[in-house]
Amino acid sequence: MKLTSLTESLPATVPFVGPEAQERARAAAFAARLGANESVFGPAPSAIAAMEDAARDAWMYGDPECHDLRHALAAHLGVAPENVVVGEGIDGLLGYLVRLLVEPGRAVVTSDGAYPTFNYHVVGYGGTLHKVPYAGDHEDPDALVSRAREVGAGLIYLSNPDNPMGSWHDAARVQEMIDALPEGCLLCLDEAYADLAPPEAIPPLDVRDRRVIRMRTFSKAHGLAGLRVGYALGHEDLIGAFDRVRNHFGLGRVAQAGAMAALADGHWLAEVRARVAQSRDAIAAIAREAGLTPLPSATNFVTVDCGRDGDFARAVLGGLLDRDIFVRMPGVAPLDRCIRIGCGTAADMDALRAALPAALRDAGE
Amino acid sequence: MKLTSLTESLPATVPFVGPEAQERARAAAFAARLGANESVFGPAPSAIAAMEDAARDAWMYGDPECHDLRHALAAHLGVAPENVVVGEGIDGLLGYLVRLLVEPGRAVVTSDGAYPTFNYHVVGYGGTLHKVPYAGDHEDPDALVSRAREVGAGLIYLSNPDNPMGSWHDAARVQEMIDALPEGCLLCLDEAYADLAPPEAIPPLDVRDRRVIRMRTFSKAHGLAGLRVGYALGHEDLIGAFDRVRNHFGLGRVAQAGAMAALADGHWLAEVRARVAQSRDAIAAIAREAGLTPLPSATNFVTVDCGRDGDFARAVLGGLLDRDIFVRMPGVAPLDRCIRIGCGTAADMDALRAALPAALRDAGE
Repeated sequence: MKLTSLTESLPATVPFVGPEAQERARAAAFAARLGANESVFGPAPSAIAAMEDAARDAWMYGDPECHDLRHALAAHLGVAPENVVVGEGIDGLLGYLVRLLVEPGRAVVTSDGAYPTFNYHVVGYGGTLHKVPYAGDHEDPDALVSRAREVGAGLIYLSNPDNPMGSWHDAARVQEMIDALPEGCLLCLDEAYADLAPPEAIPPLDVRDRRVIRMRTFSKAHGLAGLRVGYALGHEDLIGAFDRVRNHFGLGRVAQAGAMAALADGHWLAEVRARVAQSRDAIAAIAREAGLTPLPSATNFVTVDCGRDGDFARAVLGGLLDRDIFVRMPGVAPLDRCIRIGCGTAADMDALRAALPAALRDAGE
Repeated sequence: MKLTSLTESLPATVPFVGPEAQERARAAAFAARLGANESVFGPAPSAIAAMEDAARDAWMYGDPECHDLRHALAAHLGVAPENVVVGEGIDGLLGYLVRLLVEPGRAVVTSDGAYPTFNYHVVGYGGTLHKVPYAGDHEDPDALVSRAREVGAGLIYLSNPDNPMGSWHDAARVQEMIDALPEGCLLCLDEAYADLAPPEAIPPLDVRDRRVIRMRTFSKAHGLAGLRVGYALGHEDLIGAFDRVRNHFGLGRVAQAGAMAALADGHWLAEVRARVAQSRDAIAAIAREAGLTPLPSATNFVTVDCGRDGDFARAVLGGLLDRDIFVRMPGVAPLDRCIRIGCGTAADMDALRAALPAALRDAGE
């Protein structure tokens, strides 16, 4: 059978290269895994125990309604369960959101260099993607809104805090943006790093507001990237529409159990926040010692400005990879003057401190 | 933002009610969970151990290429890794397949009463679904092919062994069907129960054949429904196309680890097969003692003909539910003269044996 005209038009190349593929290609493991915005501090011991228990029950399908997890999230956040949908990571939820809203001919706006998986979904459902430049190291709310108005977009993507730059806007700035949205335009506010951000970066939740949907995850601060559990918060009409298209049994029993336990463990979250803050300082110090400029970060990575062009930053990155340090970098100029280094353990930081000066020398500093 | 015209047209009702929702509604747990075609015998101890190990590493995303699992499956099945795609259960893979192939105006053929999740995806992508009746207790290959030819369908769904009836065709019959497919029509052969079927029910794998894609899973014989790991086997061009649309990080690290270990544990699979065979015999004996007719099964459930109409079978089912036995039944006449009972432990069988006669009395036998 023939592919549909839309899927036939999509690129056949695999869009995502994981660290495992890089390790296979170089036939050597990385010593420090600091490139995928994961939490090397791991899941809460309580979450590990919950997953171990659930492993024995893994013969049972997970609850397709994710009732307990949705209710726990709702109670935790002070919203109703009808305002919460749980899915296979933010990636999965972005796919469902785009499927609900985007068809060929519809315009969508994002920032040039922002999360590529959002773009993958928009293109995948035939939307027309419009990109505005970052304003320095920040996504530019005014430019996003202006462009949406100009092209008649019904959907805007903004991550706050931002990946790949680590920057953030304060809540008032985000609220201004929401208030300036064109009629009928939805803001997809990706708050993957909300748990790691200063409180003043996160606007209060108002799930009566039909203009915004917020995406969060257990993959970052909660250290459960390997389970893939994300959730979206918004008006119950939009949240309810996910039931029309989602893979109802897509979130397994082990994943739901791990996320439930992680959510309940505020102690571990506080511990992770402290370790992340400490590691951000360490990365910043290592970068400065090497003559580079660490950017302020509200995430569990620090984006480091290498001070020259993309070719130079790519060479620095290559030097780190050659020294068994897995890191990544923004893919688009002018952001690609930077490399992005994840928070790590003391051993990871030692490895980074040892490797960075040599990587810079190789890059022809 | 407005939903697309397609997603706006989709039913807003939640299509899948899990046993957990039923337990919440009745405010009591089931004593025997025999309704979801799960494997009560559990995952292999080796798979449990692998999941426990992976739980500690759950801070790392799973390999988006699922390299090790795909290679292990390929080696196990004697095909190339390019002929294998792994995804979030057969449900997830059916969604991707339908997205690749179905757009508004395209015709798809299935059996009336066959797997509803396939239908959910076809409707969800705007396809036109044509249904042919079962021939007795079997899906009807001739009718499926004839209807496909008549309506110009590009995709046919057949499950072999069949859910919800437990019946099967032998390999030669399936191969005849493949050879009779109209030009350009793909057979989606759902072999979720392949690991539990007699070998003569499974046609030899021929991944050079562009006319068929086969779906399998770790949710049934391997007892890992709570991880959601399925795989599809087919020509590398079609398999490769999944990379255009799938959620690349959708299959987590814990899920990949559990599936890898389960695949390697042939001893446990043999043990499960033996226990399933024993339990099928037990269910059949219990049904006969109660005056009902068990149908032959190549799966881990037995479909039991209650001998009258759908209302009667629904009453029997209700009587079992009232007695804390979770079972399900086909949703469509004339299949709905049956109830579907999953294989269980000796304790499950004792509970069933005690409950069935009373359920029949309540139903007004």
